[in-house]
Amino acid sequence: MHSKDFGIIAFEVHFPRYYIAQTDLEVADECIGKYTKGLEQEALGLCSVEEDICSICLTVVSNLVSRLNLDLRDVGFLEVGTETLIDKSKSTKTVLMQLFENCGNLDVEGVDVKNACFGGTAALFHALNWLESSAWDGRLALVVAADIAVYGTKATRPTGGAGAVAMLLGPNAPLVIDPGLASTVSVISQSHPAQAADGLGHPIDFVCFHSPFTRLVRKAFGWLALDDVRRATCVSNGEGCNGIGQNDTNRLDAAVVDSISRLVQPDSPTLDIRETDSICMKATADLFTDRVEPGLVFARQVGNMYTASLYTCLVSLLLSTPESRLRGRRVLLYSYGSGLASAMFSLRIHQTRTLSDLCYSADSEAPKDDRTVNPIFNRLLTQRTRLDIKNFEKLLADRSTLHNAAPFKPTHRPEGLFPGSYFLDVVDEQHRRTYKQVPSCQP
Amino acid sequence: MHSKDFGIIAFEVHFPRYYIAQTDLEVADECIGKYTKGLEQEALGLCSVEEDICSICLTVVSNLVSRLNLDLRDVGFLEVGTETLIDKSKSTKTVLMQLFENCGNLDVEGVDVKNACFGGTAALFHALNWLESSAWDGRLALVVAADIAVYGTKATRPTGGAGAVAMLLGPNAPLVIDPGLASTVSVISQSHPAQAADGLGHPIDFVCFHSPFTRLVRKAFGWLALDDVRRATCVSNGEGCNGIGQNDTNRLDAAVVDSISRLVQPDSPTLDIRETDSICMKATADLFTDRVEPGLVFARQVGNMYTASLYTCLVSLLLSTPESRLRGRRVLLYSYGSGLASAMFSLRIHQTRTLSDLCYSADSEAPKDDRTVNPIFNRLLTQRTRLDIKNFEKLLADRSTLHNAAPFKPTHRPEGLFPGSYFLDVVDEQHRRTYKQVPSCQP
Repeated sequence: MHSKDFGIIAFEVHFPRYYIAQTDLEVADECIGKYTKGLEQEALGLCSVEEDICSICLTVVSNLVSRLNLDLRDVGFLEVGTETLIDKSKSTKTVLMQLFENCGNLDVEGVDVKNACFGGTAALFHALNWLESSAWDGRLALVVAADIAVYGTKATRPTGGAGAVAMLLGPNAPLVIDPGLASTVSVISQSHPAQAADGLGHPIDFVCFHSPFTRLVRKAFGWLALDDVRRATCVSNGEGCNGIGQNDTNRLDAAVVDSISRLVQPDSPTLDIRETDSICMKATADLFTDRVEPGLVFARQVGNMYTASLYTCLVSLLLSTPESRLRGRRVLLYSYGSGLASAMFSLRIHQTRTLSDLCYSADSEAPKDDRTVNPIFNRLLTQRTRLDIKNFEKLLADRSTLHNAAPFKPTHRPEGLFPGSYFLDVVDEQHRRTYKQVPSCQP
Repeated sequence: MHSKDFGIIAFEVHFPRYYIAQTDLEVADECIGKYTKGLEQEALGLCSVEEDICSICLTVVSNLVSRLNLDLRDVGFLEVGTETLIDKSKSTKTVLMQLFENCGNLDVEGVDVKNACFGGTAALFHALNWLESSAWDGRLALVVAADIAVYGTKATRPTGGAGAVAMLLGPNAPLVIDPGLASTVSVISQSHPAQAADGLGHPIDFVCFHSPFTRLVRKAFGWLALDDVRRATCVSNGEGCNGIGQNDTNRLDAAVVDSISRLVQPDSPTLDIRETDSICMKATADLFTDRVEPGLVFARQVGNMYTASLYTCLVSLLLSTPESRLRGRRVLLYSYGSGLASAMFSLRIHQTRTLSDLCYSADSEAPKDDRTVNPIFNRLLTQRTRLDIKNFEKLLADRSTLHNAAPFKPTHRPEGLFPGSYFLDVVDEQHRRTYKQVPSCQP
C-alpha cells in the first residue's frame, strides 16, 4: 500500500484582484523603504467586499476543475484548512459540496481543519493518511488552503494578505511526498542533484517556507544554515551531539561554513539576535537566491496567504524554475501555525511524470525569464487592479463596516474580481450567503 | 499494515456537574410532559461559568491519563473535534499540549476539526487513517470530542447540553473499527451473535446514534427499520433495487416486518411523516429497548453533547450491558453534523481483549442493575448539583453576560465542578485564559 508514490498531482492558486503597491503604503505611512526594503514586500493583495472564505474556496476549486476538466466523481476526500471562519459550526467543505452536486457525488470524506496558518498542512497530512489507509477507495483527494485577513493598525497592515490554493492528491504523483523526514537534513549541503540519501540525509535543493513576509523567510533560512553549521561543527569537534555526520562541514557549502562557523565555536562571543540575523543572512545570500527566492513570487506580490502561503511558495518555485533544474530534485517545506503547530517535511519532484497539470507549468524548456508567459503569473503581474491609498482605505473601511452585516447585498464591482471568480451575491436576514460566479475564461 | 485491529482502547467521559430536572423546566414553562414524555429527556446538564471548551477538554484528557496511568510520551496523534470555538485561529489541541509538556513530548500530530456535531467523528477517522498510514510511528492516537451549548429561547433550551469524550486509539483494540460498512447492513435482523457477515451483511446487535434528544433517536431507529423492510420487500418482489438479499424478510425480525410491511407495498396509502413515525416507533419498540436504549443513559441525563454525543452513547451501551452480551457483538454507529456531513460505520467488540480500560467497565459479570456501581454512572446519577429554575436562569444569564468578557475572573463555585476538573481561573485584557484544576480524586 505504501509504495504508490502518493503526492500532489495538480495545484490551483487564487489571489485577490485588488492590490496596493507597498511603495504607496510607504508614502502614506511616511516610512520610505520600510515595507519594500525592510519587509521585502512589493505589493499587498486585498479582497473585495464581495469575496469571503467560501467564495475564494469555490473559486479555486472551480478553476481547478475547469482547467483539468476534472470529473468530481473521482474525488473521494475533500478538506479545507483555514483560520478565516464565517461560521463556528458549518464547515467550508460543506459549501464546496455544491460543486459536487451536479455530478451526484455526495460521498466525500473530510471536513474543515483549524490551527492558524497550519490548517492547510494538517489537511494535506489528513489527505495523505487517507490515501494510505484502508478507507481509501481509489479516488483522489482534494485539499484547499485559504485565508483572508486585513489588519487594523498601520504597523501591521502592510503584512496582511489573502489567497487560496487547491491541491489534488493521488498515487503516482509528479510531486511525491516523502514518508518521513531525516533529522539530518541540511539546507546548505553542496548540490548533488538526484542523489540518494547519504550521511547527510536527503540533499535539499530548494526550500519553501510559510511566508508572512519575505524578510522573515530570509532570516529563517539564515538560522537554518546556522543550525546546520552548528551540528556539523559540533560533530567535527567530537562532541557527539545530534550532528549530521563526521566531517560534514566538508559536505556543506564552504563559503557559508566559513562565514558562519565563527558563531558556533565554544569561544564565540554571544551575539544578540539582530547581529546573528545579519551575519547569517549575509552568509546565505547566494544560496537564498538560488534555493528560496524562486518560491517567493506570490508572497512578495500578494503578502501573507496564511494557510495557503507555503503552498503558493511551492507553486511559485515550480513556475519560476526551468524543468531541467526541477527533475529529480528535493524540496524541503516548513509549515508553521501560531498557537502553535509546525512541521518540516519534504517532497521529491519525479524524474519523468508530467508536470503540466501543476498550475500551468509547461513540460518544456521554454524560457522562464519572462514570467508573464505563464498564465497565472501573467494574471498576478499584469491583470490586477491597483488601488491608490484613498481607495485602499475606503475598501478597508467597507470591509470593517460590512463584516457580519445581514441582510446585505454588496455592490458588484467587476474590476475587483478575476474572470471565473465566485462572489457573494447576497446575505439574507438569517446570515445565509448566496454566491454567483463571474463568467469564466481561462487565465 | 491493515490487519492490526485498530480501534478504541479506552474512553473517558466528562459532563457538567450542574443540572436541572426536565420536570422542573416543564413546570416553569407550563408544559407538563412535553420534555419528559415528548422529548424523552430526564435532565439537562449545564456548565458553570468556570468551564469552557478548553477546560472540559483538559479535564477529560487529564482524567483519562490519571485513570490509565498513561504515559503521554506514548501518544503521537491528538485531535479535537468541536463546534464550540473560543478562538477562530488557535486550536484547542494546542491548549491540551500543556498536559504533554511535563513529559517533554512536543511531537504530536493533529489539530482541530470542525463540522458541527460531526467533528468528533472526523477526528476519529483522521486518527484511524494515521494509524494505518506510513506516518504512524507506533504510538497511540488520542481523539477528543467536546462541546458546550445553551439555547436562548424557551422552545429550544430543553435540548441544550454539554459534554466531552476522550478516546484512546491503537492496535489490538477491544473495540475494533470495521474498515468498511456493508451497504446491506440491517438493524432489525434476527439476532445471530458473533456470526460472520452473510448475505445480510454484518449482523448488527446494537445501534448508537448522535442523540440530540431521545425521542429523535427513537424515530431514527424506526425509519432505519422501515428502510430495511423496504429494501427486503423490494427484493422479494423481484424489483431488483439495492436490497439486502433474496427472501431477506425471513431473516428480519418477524414482528417488525409484520407491522411495517404494509407501509412499503406498491398500493400502500401515502402517510405523512407523523403517521409513519408513529407506526415505525411502535413496531420497533421492543428492539429499541434491546438494541438502542442501553446507549442513552448519558443522553437522557445530560442532553445533547454535540460532537461527544455519539461516543457517550457507545460508553453508555458498554457500561449498561453485561459483558456476556457484549463479547463478539457488532455495534452500528450513526454520526451526523449539520451543514451537513454524516457517516454510518460499525465496530466489533473483541471476544477476549480486556474491556476494563473502557471507562471503568469491569471485566466481570457483576450485576449491572444497580447503575451506580459504576463510578462514572455513580457520578452522573448521584453526585451532580441540581439547580432550581431560579438558579438555572441565573446561570444562563451569567453565561450570556460574561461571554467573551475580558479581563474577567469568574467566581469560584466548587459545587459546580467535579473533583479533578479544570476550570477557568482568569481571562486577561488580551483574552488569554488561564486554567486551574480542582483537586482530583477518582470518581
